[in-house]
Amino acid sequence: MKPKVLAFDVFGTVVDWHGSITAELTSLIPEIDAISFTSRWRSGYKPAMARVRSGEFGWTRIDDLHRIILDQVLKEFSIDRLADSQKRHLNLVWHRLHPWPDTVKGLNLLKQDHTIVTLSNGNLGLLANMAKNANLPWDLILSAEVFRHYKPDPETYLGVCNIFDLEPNEVMLVASHKDDLQAAHACGLQTAFIERPLEFGPKHSREDLHRESWTDFHAGDFLDLAKQLKN
Amino acid sequence: MKPKVLAFDVFGTVVDWHGSITAELTSLIPEIDAISFTSRWRSGYKPAMARVRSGEFGWTRIDDLHRIILDQVLKEFSIDRLADSQKRHLNLVWHRLHPWPDTVKGLNLLKQDHTIVTLSNGNLGLLANMAKNANLPWDLILSAEVFRHYKPDPETYLGVCNIFDLEPNEVMLVASHKDDLQAAHACGLQTAFIERPLEFGPKHSREDLHRESWTDFHAGDFLDLAKQLKN
Repeated sequence: MKPKVLAFDVFGTVVDWHGSITAELTSLIPEIDAISFTSRWRSGYKPAMARVRSGEFGWTRIDDLHRIILDQVLKEFSIDRLADSQKRHLNLVWHRLHPWPDTVKGLNLLKQDHTIVTLSNGNLGLLANMAKNANLPWDLILSAEVFRHYKPDPETYLGVCNIFDLEPNEVMLVASHKDDLQAAHACGLQTAFIERPLEFGPKHSREDLHRESWTDFHAGDFLDLAKQLKN
Repeated sequence: MKPKVLAFDVFGTVVDWHGSITAELTSLIPEIDAISFTSRWRSGYKPAMARVRSGEFGWTRIDDLHRIILDQVLKEFSIDRLADSQKRHLNLVWHRLHPWPDTVKGLNLLKQDHTIVTLSNGNLGLLANMAKNANLPWDLILSAEVFRHYKPDPETYLGVCNIFDLEPNEVMLVASHKDDLQAAHACGLQTAFIERPLEFGPKHSREDLHRESWTDFHAGDFLDLAKQLKN
């Protein structure tokens, strides 16, 4: 059965966070090791969410988690010359991430036969600003902020089904991360893995791009997925 | 100061609920007084929300409130020949409402200089299906469902500001209902009244279309509003 709703992971699957942030950092702080800084910033994200899950923090938007991590990484890299307005602006780089080359065309193709929505831990304002900036043609922007749960909590995947009054197998998660897809699969959703070999930067070789037996689709990019879904 | 975000009331302001529902009803149940039936269905909506506010019902989506009211109005009009699948389909007419003639062009113009979002008591699935069906180019769909409060509760208007990290006067509510605009005004938002003389049907003459001293804009339609905002 063809899925009615396609729910997309965003960071890495739809947009190139590593390339976008590296480029902005290099232009703002030319002397920095931008690749390491970017990886460090991103790697602070799961531990920060864990502090929300554990109850140490109350519900916190990713914008605010990004800022907490940024301040820490700036310290680690001994960057102390940024004004607060520059830090605020840098923190919002996550609103300005660039799509992969196939993203906009692929989403417009997929939108013809499916309802396309985000399912991201990013907050609604971030995702809306990103979509406006990058011309992402979402039918609906959904976020952890709506469900007050981060992925991979089941409340997020089942929340999408509930919003559209659909059974889990009528919804498909599209993502370049297998842990996200596994959690959706466990909730009964269909799954599509998208290879994004450059997600973690040109120096990082991904070892996890092979096809899994339990995914419903495995595609090189969104154009490939659109073609497979048309068949 | 020009508002950065325009938040739109939807039923009546963006789409013609009266005309759309009357047309579907007439084709489904030709013998019915479709105008009275439609007005009756809509008028059950505020009392139904009041039952949620009072705690008699838990949080309930408008789709479900619409169905409760529909079943009651069908009884009042002695219509007992619809199958459950027909009632389900009829209830979803709110997902298929038609835009006013200026709506799509107006929203696309307004989207050039502003972030355009919904702020509706309609649920997210309803608003997303409506937008897909009618080509409404929202940057973000926001709903009472996100805030777990219906308009005119302040949590809804201030919720939009919070999502975009803006001050209240950087956001403007656009609506054809003065009670909605008054509540937004009391929260510090800018306000734009849109005249929709046919909102309640061709037989109902609206007496409340005059300009108020406290609104920031007063426009005949979205094209007029776009022109005024360009000045």
